[in-house]
Amino acid sequence: MAGRFVKTNKGLNVINPYNGNIAGRTFWAGIEELEEAIQAALAARRPMQSLSSYQRYEILMHIKTRLQQRHSEFADLIMQESGKPIRYASGEVDRSVQTITVAAEESKRTPREYISLDWTKAGERKEGLVRYFPVGVVAGIAPFNFPLNLAVHKLAPAIAAGCPVILKPSSSTPLSMLLLAEIIAETNLPAGAVSVLPMDRETGNLLVTDERIALLSFTGSPEVGWKMKAAAGKKKVVLELGGNAGVVITPSADIESALTKCLSGAFSYSGQVCIHTQRIFVHKDIFNVFASRFAEMTSQLISGEPASLQTDVSCMIDEANAQRVEKWVNDAKAEGARVLAGGKRTGTFYAPTILTNTNHSMQVCSDEIFGPVVTLEPYEDFDEAIALLNNTRFGLQAGIFTNNMDEMNRAFESIVAGGIIMNDVPTFRVDHMPYGGVKDSGIGREGVKYAMLDMLEPRILVKSF
Amino acid sequence: MAGRFVKTNKGLNVINPYNGNIAGRTFWAGIEELEEAIQAALAARRPMQSLSSYQRYEILMHIKTRLQQRHSEFADLIMQESGKPIRYASGEVDRSVQTITVAAEESKRTPREYISLDWTKAGERKEGLVRYFPVGVVAGIAPFNFPLNLAVHKLAPAIAAGCPVILKPSSSTPLSMLLLAEIIAETNLPAGAVSVLPMDRETGNLLVTDERIALLSFTGSPEVGWKMKAAAGKKKVVLELGGNAGVVITPSADIESALTKCLSGAFSYSGQVCIHTQRIFVHKDIFNVFASRFAEMTSQLISGEPASLQTDVSCMIDEANAQRVEKWVNDAKAEGARVLAGGKRTGTFYAPTILTNTNHSMQVCSDEIFGPVVTLEPYEDFDEAIALLNNTRFGLQAGIFTNNMDEMNRAFESIVAGGIIMNDVPTFRVDHMPYGGVKDSGIGREGVKYAMLDMLEPRILVKSF
Amino acid sequence: MAGRFVKTNKGLNVINPYNGNIAGRTFWAGIEELEEAIQAALAARRPMQSLSSYQRYEILMHIKTRLQQRHSEFADLIMQESGKPIRYASGEVDRSVQTITVAAEESKRTPREYISLDWTKAGERKEGLVRYFPVGVVAGIAPFNFPLNLAVHKLAPAIAAGCPVILKPSSSTPLSMLLLAEIIAETNLPAGAVSVLPMDRETGNLLVTDERIALLSFTGSPEVGWKMKAAAGKKKVVLELGGNAGVVITPSADIESALTKCLSGAFSYSGQVCIHTQRIFVHKDIFNVFASRFAEMTSQLISGEPASLQTDVSCMIDEANAQRVEKWVNDAKAEGARVLAGGKRTGTFYAPTILTNTNHSMQVCSDEIFGPVVTLEPYEDFDEAIALLNNTRFGLQAGIFTNNMDEMNRAFESIVAGGIIMNDVPTFRVDHMPYGGVKDSGIGREGVKYAMLDMLEPRILVKSF
Amino acid sequence: MAGRFVKTNKGLNVINPYNGNIAGRTFWAGIEELEEAIQAALAARRPMQSLSSYQRYEILMHIKTRLQQRHSEFADLIMQESGKPIRYASGEVDRSVQTITVAAEESKRTPREYISLDWTKAGERKEGLVRYFPVGVVAGIAPFNFPLNLAVHKLAPAIAAGCPVILKPSSSTPLSMLLLAEIIAETNLPAGAVSVLPMDRETGNLLVTDERIALLSFTGSPEVGWKMKAAAGKKKVVLELGGNAGVVITPSADIESALTKCLSGAFSYSGQVCIHTQRIFVHKDIFNVFASRFAEMTSQLISGEPASLQTDVSCMIDEANAQRVEKWVNDAKAEGARVLAGGKRTGTFYAPTILTNTNHSMQVCSDEIFGPVVTLEPYEDFDEAIALLNNTRFGLQAGIFTNNMDEMNRAFESIVAGGIIMNDVPTFRVDHMPYGGVKDSGIGREGVKYAMLDMLEPRILVKSF
Repeated sequence: MAGRFVKTNKGLNVINPYNGNIAGRTFWAGIEELEEAIQAALAARRPMQSLSSYQRYEILMHIKTRLQQRHSEFADLIMQESGKPIRYASGEVDRSVQTITVAAEESKRTPREYISLDWTKAGERKEGLVRYFPVGVVAGIAPFNFPLNLAVHKLAPAIAAGCPVILKPSSSTPLSMLLLAEIIAETNLPAGAVSVLPMDRETGNLLVTDERIALLSFTGSPEVGWKMKAAAGKKKVVLELGGNAGVVITPSADIESALTKCLSGAFSYSGQVCIHTQRIFVHKDIFNVFASRFAEMTSQLISGEPASLQTDVSCMIDEANAQRVEKWVNDAKAEGARVLAGGKRTGTFYAPTILTNTNHSMQVCSDEIFGPVVTLEPYEDFDEAIALLNNTRFGLQAGIFTNNMDEMNRAFESIVAGGIIMNDVPTFRVDHMPYGGVKDSGIGREGVKYAMLDMLEPRILVKSF
Repeated sequence: MAGRFVKTNKGLNVINPYNGNIAGRTFWAGIEELEEAIQAALAARRPMQSLSSYQRYEILMHIKTRLQQRHSEFADLIMQESGKPIRYASGEVDRSVQTITVAAEESKRTPREYISLDWTKAGERKEGLVRYFPVGVVAGIAPFNFPLNLAVHKLAPAIAAGCPVILKPSSSTPLSMLLLAEIIAETNLPAGAVSVLPMDRETGNLLVTDERIALLSFTGSPEVGWKMKAAAGKKKVVLELGGNAGVVITPSADIESALTKCLSGAFSYSGQVCIHTQRIFVHKDIFNVFASRFAEMTSQLISGEPASLQTDVSCMIDEANAQRVEKWVNDAKAEGARVLAGGKRTGTFYAPTILTNTNHSMQVCSDEIFGPVVTLEPYEDFDEAIALLNNTRFGLQAGIFTNNMDEMNRAFESIVAGGIIMNDVPTFRVDHMPYGGVKDSGIGREGVKYAMLDMLEPRILVKSF
Repeated sequence: MAGRFVKTNKGLNVINPYNGNIAGRTFWAGIEELEEAIQAALAARRPMQSLSSYQRYEILMHIKTRLQQRHSEFADLIMQESGKPIRYASGEVDRSVQTITVAAEESKRTPREYISLDWTKAGERKEGLVRYFPVGVVAGIAPFNFPLNLAVHKLAPAIAAGCPVILKPSSSTPLSMLLLAEIIAETNLPAGAVSVLPMDRETGNLLVTDERIALLSFTGSPEVGWKMKAAAGKKKVVLELGGNAGVVITPSADIESALTKCLSGAFSYSGQVCIHTQRIFVHKDIFNVFASRFAEMTSQLISGEPASLQTDVSCMIDEANAQRVEKWVNDAKAEGARVLAGGKRTGTFYAPTILTNTNHSMQVCSDEIFGPVVTLEPYEDFDEAIALLNNTRFGLQAGIFTNNMDEMNRAFESIVAGGIIMNDVPTFRVDHMPYGGVKDSGIGREGVKYAMLDMLEPRILVKSF
Repeated sequence: MAGRFVKTNKGLNVINPYNGNIAGRTFWAGIEELEEAIQAALAARRPMQSLSSYQRYEILMHIKTRLQQRHSEFADLIMQESGKPIRYASGEVDRSVQTITVAAEESKRTPREYISLDWTKAGERKEGLVRYFPVGVVAGIAPFNFPLNLAVHKLAPAIAAGCPVILKPSSSTPLSMLLLAEIIAETNLPAGAVSVLPMDRETGNLLVTDERIALLSFTGSPEVGWKMKAAAGKKKVVLELGGNAGVVITPSADIESALTKCLSGAFSYSGQVCIHTQRIFVHKDIFNVFASRFAEMTSQLISGEPASLQTDVSCMIDEANAQRVEKWVNDAKAEGARVLAGGKRTGTFYAPTILTNTNHSMQVCSDEIFGPVVTLEPYEDFDEAIALLNNTRFGLQAGIFTNNMDEMNRAFESIVAGGIIMNDVPTFRVDHMPYGGVKDSGIGREGVKYAMLDMLEPRILVKSF
């Protein structure tokens, strides 16, 4: 917190969801700690604003370099706190390194505009300089599923933009971010620039309501997110919520590539991914082939302990979530859905599951399942496929497998979502691309440069020339 | 409404505030009319999105050309509904022409990005196209003080961005916008693309709460604005609120130019301007000279009937506002303020007034007076002047008269406001510049291109190359 | 010249190539007139630089409006001086109107940069403002084939950029530009800002060698262009030269659309177009169908007098050119080429001609024919088609008819040309797009904004902040 | 060469100009070696173009990291080959590190445009993607004065842009670049991507005339540069030539700061710097004070062996240059110039020299002296100062010391030079800023991103949407 590690009188044991062991111990921050962090952050605003580009760059590059050096330590910690297979945990560290690198580079490239104002006589011999100033204190609330990288997507842009940041990690998975806080403490950032505070929901909610916070950036569930917006007062709000992303496989696609990518999109980290591939629509002419191959490949996925490099899928974050998924699948079956693979729960583990014969009234279709379940349905023609994709209150990302230019154009024109991914699953994301949802999937964009835009506000200097 | 003029069973008489005559008659829109307008707007979304650049351009240029042709008719109407002196009313029409022209040009230049995604191996041979799509239906709520141009600042960018728009003009001054609606009806815009609906506050509030509206753009008072944000649900919100803008006169300034500009900034349209010059800080070495010259010039302002080309100041929008101003001034006097000029009310007319010996605890300093009153105070050094300027909950624009480069730099670095105007009053605005406040003065920016940004949302197409 | 019309002692009769009548009379400018124009242009540099954005905008919009008003007069003059069918002449006027409109808009949007310089300690608290200043006097040399629009592509950007311009139209077709000069003389442009001077080649060459000219912009033949570059001294040089543009028709294309567009690309204005479609490559599976349909459509083209709205093709610019085309075709026939349509000359008229069984050693393939002749050849696979397209010393534009995304990607990656046009002929151009060639087809880009970039040079102001 | 080190039969001994010792031995490349390098470069074009952003980034970051690791080795080598004092040599290595870092970052940010084409009906439902492709083989010719960084300013952008590059270092100072070539050989760049070839002038001139080279980038003297442009054929040419940069000291300036900066601008590396401060104009009211303080400070400069950290100035690159400077100074004295400091030669060493009472007809004023000589003259008013600054055939950079906003504005508007530096000497440069001259000082801009622009050419893909 604000550059130093603070113990409170309320311990927090972080449980490894795979084996139930304690992954690590830390402390809950209470209202007092939060108040102290806010005060420190407010005091850090001006010093943060005054940092030169090269200072922000060097601070971020230091964090990046040290994260690279301690790569395996971080990967291990992510695996332990989240139960994520080590291959994916390691990949998450790589991505965090990249997110920080991009932030370092963008800290030198904050937007600036130099505009002529003499478009009418009133502006004769006047011009404007537009500089983008940090908005003030940023509050970040991050989810459990990418304990490091999704928090870094708030923290790194904030540093790059010159905003102090108070970060609330998921209380299930706070350890990797607290380790990163150690590294951050090695830098020359002003005290108060960064605080990482595990908090219960009630305390964390003060970040939403406190008027001294200038921006709230939340990644999590739609229900929670939209309530926060209503309670946020004058502050800006960015919401990165979930969805029930769909993908369309057309006859002109490379089917083998589509199968491999759908497998990963549907089941990696047990589908606990905002852009998890939840709904697959396959052209009727290739549906049967696709379905049988996909079921076969799904059944061959290796499930087991996260620490093994062979493991494809492991446990979910907790048994309650596994039970929720179980219930949704059972409900769907009761309404006529057919199981092509999986469909079974063992404790916190839910088997990679393919359903077909589903419809939009089932929760497995219409809500965000956030589990290793995918629906697979045939369609007649491309327009119908687009309509099926769009038949949802969400709009995060969508995937289209095709080699047909017309279909690409119609997809871009018609799919209401933040990202349309050609020949890949909606689960595709690289860390510098604009990322975020429309409709109930959120408001605002992340992707370092795009996240920074919300953390900056323009001021124009009007001068003569 | 939605392309045709609708009579309702509830007439609305618009009163000329100068002479109490009826400036015009129209109708209140009720809940049913609003619902119809919303339905029509929703239906217009796809046709609006599909308009080519050249079609949007031609539609806006038609509106512009026709507005130019009927220039004097519009100026007269503005004068009648608002009591604004004809010189200023005519200037407002000119500015509206410019706002629409810029929107026409910007309709061809909506933002688009083409980005490489191969910054890591995960994005190898991938690239992204980012197109900015219209967000959906825009609701605009406009104030009485610039009945035409501040409404056009919502309407023209909406058309340029491809968003249907429902506009609620001030019920005191709806006539000029209704006349513009006649011109709009001549174009090829889809039915439902534009509706101009005079509504009472209760009905108008449905624009705030209705979830089918994608963006609310409000120009008006801070109190109303911030409440709207809390009630706005999932929609985006842009608030252009007021302030108590200040200006600093330093010894290196051109004093004659400063005097002339302050006079206009303080008193044009009786200070009923969002960026009205409310607080003037003059370096102590030149304070006395400035104060006596300023009082003298103020007393020479010609007040009278708006229709005269000689008239500098006329009535306020209604007597209630004139009485409010009277009370604030009297309160200030009671607390020690001294009147250098003006200080008198006659019906709806309040005389251009200069106060000195004021302090921040007086409402004439700390709140938005929205009347022809300005405070004039000396300062010791530039840092103090900046501190005085910043000592407010508002942050719209500020002015600095100086020829000193250091002072310019310090002003830009330190003044917390959306615009810092060198050698001019904070009242300076040209219609394509980014315009909007920080702190309690609002959220978001207008200025055509900037207004359009909020009316558009990015979607990325990720493809191979 | 420099704002007034000058008679010299050397008359110039402009001949209508269709009927040999005199289309109009004007005067040759000699060395003395040119010197006077250069002096006036040099004197106009500072006043031109000082014009406000709105002044440049208004000047260009005046020219645009007046050109629209006198549309048919201009179309008729173009038809008379060039023999271009009236439909195309009229279209050229439309395009000139658009070119000027875009220039008007871009005059308000000249590039400016505002950059942070504190990327290292050496630049601490420094920032840079980059303004783009007019380079100085621009010399434009324009061809006969689009007497108005290709000259306007030099003149309008020059005015928008603030550069005085001396324009040498083709001596075959100077009349429409001289008429435009009349309109320009109505504006507030400084004397010397624009001179339109018909000159013989020797005199015109002084524009190339004179060191007081800052930029030479030439549209014409490659042979002449590259020699100019060598003789141009210190000045910047933009060359818009020709090519032998090719198009590929793949099996996934819409064949009817391809046929219609190829017909227009190959034969409009008798192929006297820089981006004339000269080489058509059709996949072997559809070659026969395409060839017979194309020959049939070609034979149905209506040739005749330019003044008729029905006329598709008319005469060439002079008999020498028609004879040159005749010789190239006959040479090709002698080497084995087969004539599918046309192949006959009548005076200045050369019939729309399709050749097949050609090869790259024939001049009809390897050189720019600048006449109504097209070669039609089959190919085996897409890679071969690309190789055929690229087998040329030119690189202006290319067309690809396909609905296959992979082929689009490979085309963009592999075709060495300034423009790759999907599902249209290489002859496609809109006036604001970046346009220009690589390899022997030229250097630099036109397209208003792009042309302006070469007419501007950046100066950075480094200052503290 | 092309990834490996080649010995030829013609040895090249590099002499340390300070002590006449051999600084290192290498080999002259002859026509055969050059031909081999060109062939290899041509073959490397397509593989270079195909490198992903992350590959270019990693290659450049490897070079950067290794250069940092071997920092002192490079600094020592620069000192030995050029006689540059070690403090400055070390600073040059730092700057090269920065130049390469910026190139690494910019390799991910090459320009791309995504534009709407439907501004008229002809472009309906069409849009354009503009990608910037590498132009082909780049030839770089670098000078002796910054043996590493000025060569890196050609090499690093070329790698970032994807162009193979053949670099001719100065034959006086090739060693540091050859050492860098060793580091480059450690990367995955295709063979032929980079060749560093010491050549005599005759051989090197083939880089100018060979039509297989796409771009010539030359840094050196104006006489040589402009001749190269004339001989360059079809290729693009960038010339970074010299100047006789001036600086103006106004009464509102911070004089102590001005003195310190002028001292460094005038005498660092014995004035052998393209943006050497050659002409100082001081307002008459402060001239005497400035002159006496400046002479005093100049006389206190420590001259001596480059290896000492205390050394401010050392020898020139060779005795011929020292003699040339001696002659120019003596000529000036003969015409009336007065020596305020220095004015003496000892072998290759020329003492830091201040002249006054000079005029523009003297070579010390009008030509580029490229030695430790500065003229110091009084002026009456600011307009005269600007006129004096501009009275030259050069236009590289200029400096203005003032705290007056008007003067800043007039300077930017009126000074004809590539850079106007406020409150610093014209010698100021950071490596990512646009840098380059107007008038006889050159054509084109460097500054990594700006250098890359010339190494790239746009191709537009026109497609439907």
